[in-house]
Amino acid sequence: MTNALPVTLDDVHDAAARIKGVAHRTPVLRSRTLNALAGTEVFVKCENFQRIGAFKFRGAYNAVSRLTPEQLARGIASYSSGNHAQATALAARELGSTAVIVMPEDAPRSKKEATAGYGAEIVTYDRYTGDRVAIGEALAAERGLTLIPPYEHPHIIAGQGTAALELIEEVKDLGALLVPVGGGGLIAGCATAAKGLLPGIRVIGVEPEAGDDTKRSLAAGERVRIPIPRTIADGQAAEIPGELTFSVNRRLVDDIALVSDDDLRVAMRWAFERMKIVIEPSGASPLAALLSGRIPDLPPRVGMIVSGGNIDADRFAELCADAPG
Amino acid sequence: MTNALPVTLDDVHDAAARIKGVAHRTPVLRSRTLNALAGTEVFVKCENFQRIGAFKFRGAYNAVSRLTPEQLARGIASYSSGNHAQATALAARELGSTAVIVMPEDAPRSKKEATAGYGAEIVTYDRYTGDRVAIGEALAAERGLTLIPPYEHPHIIAGQGTAALELIEEVKDLGALLVPVGGGGLIAGCATAAKGLLPGIRVIGVEPEAGDDTKRSLAAGERVRIPIPRTIADGQAAEIPGELTFSVNRRLVDDIALVSDDDLRVAMRWAFERMKIVIEPSGASPLAALLSGRIPDLPPRVGMIVSGGNIDADRFAELCADAPG
Repeated sequence: MTNALPVTLDDVHDAAARIKGVAHRTPVLRSRTLNALAGTEVFVKCENFQRIGAFKFRGAYNAVSRLTPEQLARGIASYSSGNHAQATALAARELGSTAVIVMPEDAPRSKKEATAGYGAEIVTYDRYTGDRVAIGEALAAERGLTLIPPYEHPHIIAGQGTAALELIEEVKDLGALLVPVGGGGLIAGCATAAKGLLPGIRVIGVEPEAGDDTKRSLAAGERVRIPIPRTIADGQAAEIPGELTFSVNRRLVDDIALVSDDDLRVAMRWAFERMKIVIEPSGASPLAALLSGRIPDLPPRVGMIVSGGNIDADRFAELCADAPG
Repeated sequence: MTNALPVTLDDVHDAAARIKGVAHRTPVLRSRTLNALAGTEVFVKCENFQRIGAFKFRGAYNAVSRLTPEQLARGIASYSSGNHAQATALAARELGSTAVIVMPEDAPRSKKEATAGYGAEIVTYDRYTGDRVAIGEALAAERGLTLIPPYEHPHIIAGQGTAALELIEEVKDLGALLVPVGGGGLIAGCATAAKGLLPGIRVIGVEPEAGDDTKRSLAAGERVRIPIPRTIADGQAAEIPGELTFSVNRRLVDDIALVSDDDLRVAMRWAFERMKIVIEPSGASPLAALLSGRIPDLPPRVGMIVSGGNIDADRFAELCADAPG
């Protein structure tokens, strides 16, 4: 069974049944202007409209919903740069549990406030010196909590895959799917769903240039660690792909495109002015890759996951003011 | 027949058939946070995602599509503070005609650029001293163009009503419908559709405090002219209700709520940060009324038309920086 993948299309279908009526079935937007610029028809799955403002709620709810009543009563622990924090906090609240979240001190204000707003306790650490996994594990052991990691878990991966499942159910045939890559959970789940439904589809991940750990790892055939990325894409600042997510992505992801922080700024402004939607830097990476022409030979119908929209209006304005052009 | 309304539900259905496949069927968003704040379930019809970024394309396309081949060959004239300009320009292009648009000198840059981008010729005037109707009519007479006014036309009103028609077809029963009021065309069409489908529905218009011409007119029982409004809601800066639109609205609109420019700023920022959508000041007026508690005794299910999202990122940042709270 060494060839079996840790997550299957059935697992994604199963997750879809669990999140139904709890997570939003997010809309798919189209833009004729985008089609003209990209030279192909683009279908934009808007996970920025998901509950908590990002796809993360899908996986968190799927994972938390499988805990026993005893586990739920003791509570949940997690660590996250932001969106998984909110997702776990909300999933815990929805399922009658409590959550303690380890967050970097410099996480965006709106993400910390929203996490606290869902009733979670926040423990902060310095993301340039601390080890969030160790802190989370110690906390879980000490207090008897169940740890819900941000991507290294089959239920998380299967839950995130429901975004692609819904997109393909709605728009049917797609020649390619563009997905932001951070820890690799979203693309692992989406690739599982996409290749399960449409075996010929190209799955293309997008990373920031400074955070190209998955691109390097795919090229090397093994997980490669890079220096802590300094990029405006705070959700994509991973140093190394997850072990579990990489075991999926090395088999299902066809290619990785890279974008600069300036590409992200331009894409965020473009989405604001032309599509009227708010995308956080990480979530804008596939759009940035399209608009900057970083992906050659696009097929006629392309799906794109806009993964989240959690950004303060002030921070957005600051970033857009620096956008070239 | 003095009691007959100039636009009927059948006219709205007829417009819906004409715009089908050309205009977007825009999504209806929901937000649990908004429901909690408003104390009712809110259904948000997102006309900011409509083609040209606002509902205006519905009416313009409906009107232009009824011109004769000779009229289309001679071309179209119109006047508009912005969104109707883009809508007419695009409708003309889609139907193989040309457009000349009279726009105020101080119209937002993005609206002027977009209008020119659709191939229209722009003629500017000073909105504090010039008379756009007279300029538009003179231009039309001189060049043999057909004038497509922004709201004083049954085909425009019927077209705008398709926004409410789609909303009610999708979410069924609604106790109230909140609609921005500028010249009165959107609410006249939406009230026609809404009361035709759901006779018991309350139709509530929302105007900026400085531009309360429709509220005053409804109270007086006749059209009242006010000084040129100075408000950030550039799409709602009407001095007097339209004659045709007022003849509908005095019979179908139940009430008008007023919002301040600060209410609009708060609502725009809130929609950005919590709903991840971009709303221009005029389009945010119903949301502003809800968030500021300006509408008492809301029924359980409330529809809301977000009428447009055409605003530069820089101007948006400027307005939000001034938002209180």
